Formats: sequence, structure tokens, C-alpha cells
Amino acid sequence: MIGNTRIGPSARCQGLRPKDFEFDGQGPLYEQLARALKRAIIDGRFSPGRPLPPTRSLAKTLNLSRNTVLGAYELLCAEALATTRGRAGTWVASDVQAALPAGSASSIAAPSRYAARTRRLPAPTLGARKPPTRLDLHYGEPVTDPRLFHSWRRKLAAAALQAGPRYPDPVGFRPLRRAISERVARRRGIVCTEEDILIVAGTQQAVTLAARVILDEGDPVVIEDPSYQYVADTLTAHGADLKFVATDEHGLMTSEVQAHAARMICVTPSHQFPSGSILSLERRLELLKIASSHGSWILEDDYDSEFQYQGRPLPALRSLDLGDRVIYIGSFSKTLFPSVRLGYVVCPAGLRADLCAAKRMDDLGSPAIEQAALAAFIQSGQFAKHLRATVTELRRRRDVLIEGLRRHAGAHIEIQGAQSGVHLVVWLPRLTFAQLDRLIELAGERDLGLYPIHPSYRVRPPHPGLLVGYAGQTSPALKTAAALFGECLESLHAETRKSLS
Amino acid sequence: MIGNTRIGPSARCQGLRPKDFEFDGQGPLYEQLARALKRAIIDGRFSPGRPLPPTRSLAKTLNLSRNTVLGAYELLCAEALATTRGRAGTWVASDVQAALPAGSASSIAAPSRYAARTRRLPAPTLGARKPPTRLDLHYGEPVTDPRLFHSWRRKLAAAALQAGPRYPDPVGFRPLRRAISERVARRRGIVCTEEDILIVAGTQQAVTLAARVILDEGDPVVIEDPSYQYVADTLTAHGADLKFVATDEHGLMTSEVQAHAARMICVTPSHQFPSGSILSLERRLELLKIASSHGSWILEDDYDSEFQYQGRPLPALRSLDLGDRVIYIGSFSKTLFPSVRLGYVVCPAGLRADLCAAKRMDDLGSPAIEQAALAAFIQSGQFAKHLRATVTELRRRRDVLIEGLRRHAGAHIEIQGAQSGVHLVVWLPRLTFAQLDRLIELAGERDLGLYPIHPSYRVRPPHPGLLVGYAGQTSPALKTAAALFGECLESLHAETRKSLS
Repeated sequence: MIGNTRIGPSARCQGLRPKDFEFDGQGPLYEQLARALKRAIIDGRFSPGRPLPPTRSLAKTLNLSRNTVLGAYELLCAEALATTRGRAGTWVASDVQAALPAGSASSIAAPSRYAARTRRLPAPTLGARKPPTRLDLHYGEPVTDPRLFHSWRRKLAAAALQAGPRYPDPVGFRPLRRAISERVARRRGIVCTEEDILIVAGTQQAVTLAARVILDEGDPVVIEDPSYQYVADTLTAHGADLKFVATDEHGLMTSEVQAHAARMICVTPSHQFPSGSILSLERRLELLKIASSHGSWILEDDYDSEFQYQGRPLPALRSLDLGDRVIYIGSFSKTLFPSVRLGYVVCPAGLRADLCAAKRMDDLGSPAIEQAALAAFIQSGQFAKHLRATVTELRRRRDVLIEGLRRHAGAHIEIQGAQSGVHLVVWLPRLTFAQLDRLIELAGERDLGLYPIHPSYRVRPPHPGLLVGYAGQTSPALKTAAALFGECLESLHAETRKSLS
Repeated sequence: MIGNTRIGPSARCQGLRPKDFEFDGQGPLYEQLARALKRAIIDGRFSPGRPLPPTRSLAKTLNLSRNTVLGAYELLCAEALATTRGRAGTWVASDVQAALPAGSASSIAAPSRYAARTRRLPAPTLGARKPPTRLDLHYGEPVTDPRLFHSWRRKLAAAALQAGPRYPDPVGFRPLRRAISERVARRRGIVCTEEDILIVAGTQQAVTLAARVILDEGDPVVIEDPSYQYVADTLTAHGADLKFVATDEHGLMTSEVQAHAARMICVTPSHQFPSGSILSLERRLELLKIASSHGSWILEDDYDSEFQYQGRPLPALRSLDLGDRVIYIGSFSKTLFPSVRLGYVVCPAGLRADLCAAKRMDDLGSPAIEQAALAAFIQSGQFAKHLRATVTELRRRRDVLIEGLRRHAGAHIEIQGAQSGVHLVVWLPRLTFAQLDRLIELAGERDLGLYPIHPSYRVRPPHPGLLVGYAGQTSPALKTAAALFGECLESLHAETRKSLS
């Protein structure tokens, strides 16, 4: 027992009012009181080497039980912030400054090189969007289909009972891996079994894991220009030495890849992100040869190949590759919805164990119920049905948008990358970049959300352009959007004429 | 168009049978045929500089359309494996070996230092378990409560409609962060707001992220001996220089921590894993001082503090810490079930932005629906109700187990770490390690799954012991298990006496 009221005169408590003690209302009362006293000591309201209020009077003042005060004082003593002097009560330690920490760690230098690199990254351009407008053409918006959510809900509920409570298989739920291996084999000609499939939390985790098992700090990595900002950021954070290689209408300019002797080459062959070009067969084969000659690994991000509107896609790099150097990654963010956070890696045999170990180290595996729900969704044929309906709907949206843009702004625009996926590029070869900014502003005033493409480029493209995501808007909305876009262009031209006259 | 049947005599196709072509059944037929031909070229069944079968006869032989054969030949030509010689048909390239990759990458050296380190890790002792026995006392088994799964299922189904399809907030679903901040404040006296909470995919991801933002390769990290293997493995894979510090009945021996000047100190103060000791208040305060003097970060893994059977827990390091140097991590693997893969970090202010950026780089955020379901589960009070019921049930199981062990083996055992959590340690001070192996074997013969504790130690403990998880078995089963354990001990002693006589 600490403190004694017979010696400690109750006068010591005089002037102290309950509001002097800021109780934070969190955790046991005695800990709250101890923290309040600690703050009072730090603030100098109780001086070093001076007595604390007697326990009984403090208990009375604060309307607490004496045991609570005793508990708080014991804690302060244990922390060497106070000492007990027998019958003389409890006193603030005379060397209390020594017991307090040297200083808060809240404004510290970056603790690791990784943290230092992440701190230097630019603000996200894709993630951090403006407040959404009514007609938002932001890339990454999912197709909103209420039926999908109702199906998914039923699958989740059923899976909750089947998946089991135990730690999941860190490399993924086997039936899901089987379903995916069969799917990529059938659709993309990728010869693989369920053993080659690693379930991950989307493309983002696939890139992180690949970086970790392939790259040491400073290793050169070829990445397309333009590129998906998060991939570039992840690799930069990891410490890779990024070598941006330009793209043209046939995709990555493979002739410029050779010189970099990269450890890894990141590429989006089906639908270059965000420019929309398709890597030609010739370049695909050249890329494989370069990879083989340097011992590079290729990260093939096939993020939207499920949505094809014209003809059949070219063979995946992974299906052309005889050297087993391609890490093929796919995601359900586009085909299902982004909040599900599931994707997969088709692992090359030489990296399979490394990638699986890295996944285990990262999070011990993705959540079991969602994996089981997705497996059931694919196996039941609902996924294929949903995809067919989505492709039909997306093609309609795309067609409406293109037709509208051609009608209302045909003379001013060039459309690229519309053959697949959920976005297209509208180039505006006659505008300056300043005019583009104004155009986006004018659109904003009409509740039309437009987004420039050049922030995705390292080397600014010759003309300004817009990255137009059309998945999140209905056909009638896209029709309206195209008309509004025409209006904005006209307003812009009117303004320009006015300023010239 | 490639190939010409008038010149290429159909005799060239003689001897070729459909079964010579292994169609893998995956992807478009022309790609399958191209791969089959490629394998035939690699195997030498078609020689360099020799003609391929004429398209018409091959189509006939294989019962394919001629267009399929033409498509396959085009692909081979594009890959420079074949050349077209006008009317003379298609020929295997004479330099076909040059077009083939230099060699498969399937048996390569570890590509990164990270991969090299993961390859050297020992096999998991906790994860890779033997085939489960009827009475399995494996650590990590969840309490199986069908009611929980039915509640959870309803919450998931409701959340599926609320969570929305979009990319989740990478740092976590705000209502869940709020619910957690209120909970850790109330239960553990940790003063924090939702802004301090980062949602992660369980303890494992929390450790990985902390390692990434704090540690460079070679940085010293203090870790308890014994320890949770996955934490040690993750840090080793990351490249940390692990300094194992012994524990005793008061937890980590803080007197030995000072010397290591660690960048990070990993500790399980509430219930040392797996020995079960509790870090004394004195040592908690000493640890904070050491961390403050070296500028170390403390990773406080409070993995099972929700399950308290005796008295109140000591204050968390995080609630005692005035220097803001403690990263407090919690998990829902024990309180809910492991397959949910959700946990949280209470971030120190100085690391908050770094940890959040690392999470975004890792996977763009945890799945939205499960987070929304968990938030609703906590907010509705069902989580608290479930926890109360679980604590009651676990205490019952623990009591039955301890009583049974005391009755059937009391003279031979010492029980440690039973005051909280989902496991306890049964020390067997009179047995040799060889006898322990035999005891586990005898138990296995009786369908009783026992697991030694010493694999979790770096420095082997003086006596053999068992790490006994009791969450996964009902009270009657645990009663039986304790009786069987007594039998096994008796058998062991009988065998020993026999061998001595």
C-alpha cells in the first residue's frame, strides 16, 4: 500500500479540481488516472521532488475509489516517475526528467531505405481522384451490376460454411487454382497445372512478390513508358533501377530493351497500359529472345485480356515462351470487382517455390472464404456467364462512347486502344497541354470528369490526350458525356478565338 | 498463305500419325498445333532445314481444317522456327537451334538475396503438421463454433451489398478502424484514434510491413527465444540480423537486450509465445527505456490477450510508452478464426505514413467485404458476445485439461502459461528428449496428437516439454486426451523399466 493520509495533509489537494485531470476514457480507470498524472508531471503541474496528493483526498476530489488511486500511484512508482516515502506518501521522483523518454519519435528520419524511397514517391494520380462528378470517366471504375453482387453474396454465404476456419493454404485454395489453370489454358493457351498457380491479393501483390524474389536493390528493370503508376512505384520502393522504354503503336519498343540487360522486364502486351497499343507478334518473340539472352524475367501483366471486342488476342508471351521465363499475372479486379482483392500468378517452374515462399512470408495466404466463393463462382459457370454479359455490355458502352465522340468531336480527336479492356485513349492532337487543362476544367463545370493521360508518361507524349474509363457509366450516360465533351471543346475553341481577336 | 500442296508431295506426311502430335487441349487449336509442332522440332522429330508436312495432308491426317494448319505454320514462321519457301511449302528453319531458347530457367540459382535467404529457411514446424489425429492438440486450431459461422455468414452476405465494388481504402475500412481503436482503447488502455489503425492481413503482414519500413539488410533485431517461427523466418528472409535473447518465467530477459543496440525489438509481453510467461511490469518499463536510449522500435505482438482467465492483464507496452516507439499488433485469427486473414497495427505517429504506404505497395488494401462484415460484427455487439462465450468455453476446456493432466500425470509434469490464451506448456522435467519422442509416438498410436515445444527454441530448453493447443478440442475430448496422456506416460515408464531390467 502506498500513500498515507494521516501525514499527507489534505491541504495538498487544495486547488486541484477534477477538470485538471484529463481522463482519456480508455482502458481501466487506474491506468487512465496514471496517464493523467503522467501528463500533469510532464506539463510541470507536479514538480520533481514534490509530493503527489494524498490518495484519500485525491479519490474524494475525483470521486474515485481509493484503490484506483493506489493502483495509479503504484504504476507511477513502477515507472520510476514517483517514489513512495512510507507514511509520507507518494512523491514525484526528483529525477523525473531522466525517467521520461528522450523525445517523441514522431518526426523521425525514414527508418529504412525502403521507407525513404516510399516517402519520395509522387502522389498517386490514379488512386487519389477528385471528388467524383456525375459523369465520371475515371479509369478503374468497375462495371456496376447489381446481379453480380447478389450472386456473389450467395456464393460468399455458401463458402463461409465450406471454407473452414483454419489457416488457408498459403499458395491458394486448390479448387480455385485448378479452375484458374483450366481457364488460362483454355482462353490464353497457357499450358499449366494448378501447381503453377499462386493466388495473390491482386496485381499489386503479384508485382511486389516478383520484385522481392527477383530483384536486389539497384537491379535494372525495364518498364514501359507510359506505365501503371503503382507498378512503377512498387518497383521504385523496392529499390529497383527503373529503365523506362518508350512504346509506340505496336507496344513496347523492344529494340531499346536489349541495351538495359534488365533483371526483369514489365510489360502489358495485350493492351499496353494506358496507351492501349498491342505488342506485335514480332516484338513478342524479340522480347523473349532478349530475355533469354540476358537471363531476364518477364512480368506479363494481362490485366484486361478477358474483354476483347475485335478478333482474337495474340498469344500470350507466356504461351510463346519455351524458356520458362515469363511470370504471367492476372487479376479479378476487372472481371469481378476491385474490392475483392484477388488475382493470380502463373509461376515459371524456376520461381515457383520462391514466389510461394514470399507469399507465405507476406500474409500466410489470401482469405479462404473469398477464394472458395470465387472457385464456386467459376466452377458453376456463373463467372463465364457474367463475363459474357459484361463483354456485351462493355462493347455497347464502348460503341456508344466512340460513336458519340466521333459525332461531337470527330474532327479534333484520335481514338486509340479501344479494341479491348475498359478504357480507351482520346488524343487531342490540335490542343496544347494548357488547353487540355482548360478543357478538363470546362468539363468539370458540366459535371463531366475527364482525366489527362500524360501523368502516366515519363517522357511527355507529343500531344495531349485523355485516359477515358467507360466501365463505370451506362450507355445513355456515355452518350450524354460524349455530347458534353463536344460542347466543352466548342467552348474551348470559342474562348481561344475570343482571346485571339 | 503459306504452304503448297501441289509441290510438297503428300508422301512427306506418310508415317505421321495423329498420336505423334500431343495436343494439350488448351487455347485455340492453331496454337495447340503450333506447340505440338514445336515440341516435335525440339525433340528432333522434324529436322532443321527439312520440310514440314504439306498443310492439306497434315490437316487431313489430323482431321483439322486447313486454316488451323496454316495458322500454326504462320506462328512457327513468326517465331523463326520455320520459313516459308513459296510453292515449296514450309520448312523447319536450318538454324532452328538458334531460335530455341538457350535453356530452361527451371533449375536456376536464387534470383535475389531475399529468395536465397528464403530458400535456406528451415521447414515450417507449426504450419506443416502431421496428418491430424482424432485428439489433436496442435497449436493454432481455432475454437470451432458453428454459431459463429452462421453469424459470420449473415454478416458477409449483408456486407457484400454494402461494401461496394471499388478499390478499398488501402489503410482499411474506416468504420472497422474506428471500432478497433475504440476496442483497444477500452480493453488495453491504448490511447489512439482510427487514424492510427492500419488494417492488415493478420500478424504476418504486420511483421513484414514493419520489417520493410524499419530494417535494412543486416540491421540487428532482438527476438525472443523461444519465438513464433514465422516471425523469425520473415525477419530472416528480409535480411535482418536476428539476436535471440532468452526468456525466463518473467518473459524476455531485458537485461540482455541493451547490448544488441537493435533497430527493432520483437516481443510478446502478454503471453510469451510459446513459453507462456508474462513480461513483468519492471521489465516492460526497462524495455521501453532501452528502446528509447537506442532509438529502437518495439513490435508488441499481443496475439491472444483477449483470452484472460486470471485477473487483469498488465498494461500493454504501447499504453506505457511515452516515446511513441511501440508498434502494437493484433489479429483476429484467435478471436474469430485464422482463415479470415485480418489483423491490425496501432501505428506510432512516426511510422504511420510509412506503414500505410508499405501496405498500399503490398496489396492496395485488404478485401472490402470482409472488413465491412467485421466492422458490423463488432459494432452490433456480436463480436463481444462471441468473445465472452469463447472465453467461458476456453476456460472450461483449459480447466478440464489441467485437471485431467494433474490427475493422470501430476507427478511428472509442470504446467506453464495457462493464465491466458489458447495454449499451455506441459514441461516434463524427468524425461529425456529421446523419451519425449517416444512419448509422442506412443500418443500417436492412440490417436492423440502431441507436439514438442523445443523446435520453437533456438537454445534447447533444459527439459523437454509439449506445446499444447486446447482450443480445437471439446472438454470431453480433452478429458479423454488427458487420460490417454497418462496412459502414454505409464507405457513409457513401463518400457523404460523393462529396458533397464
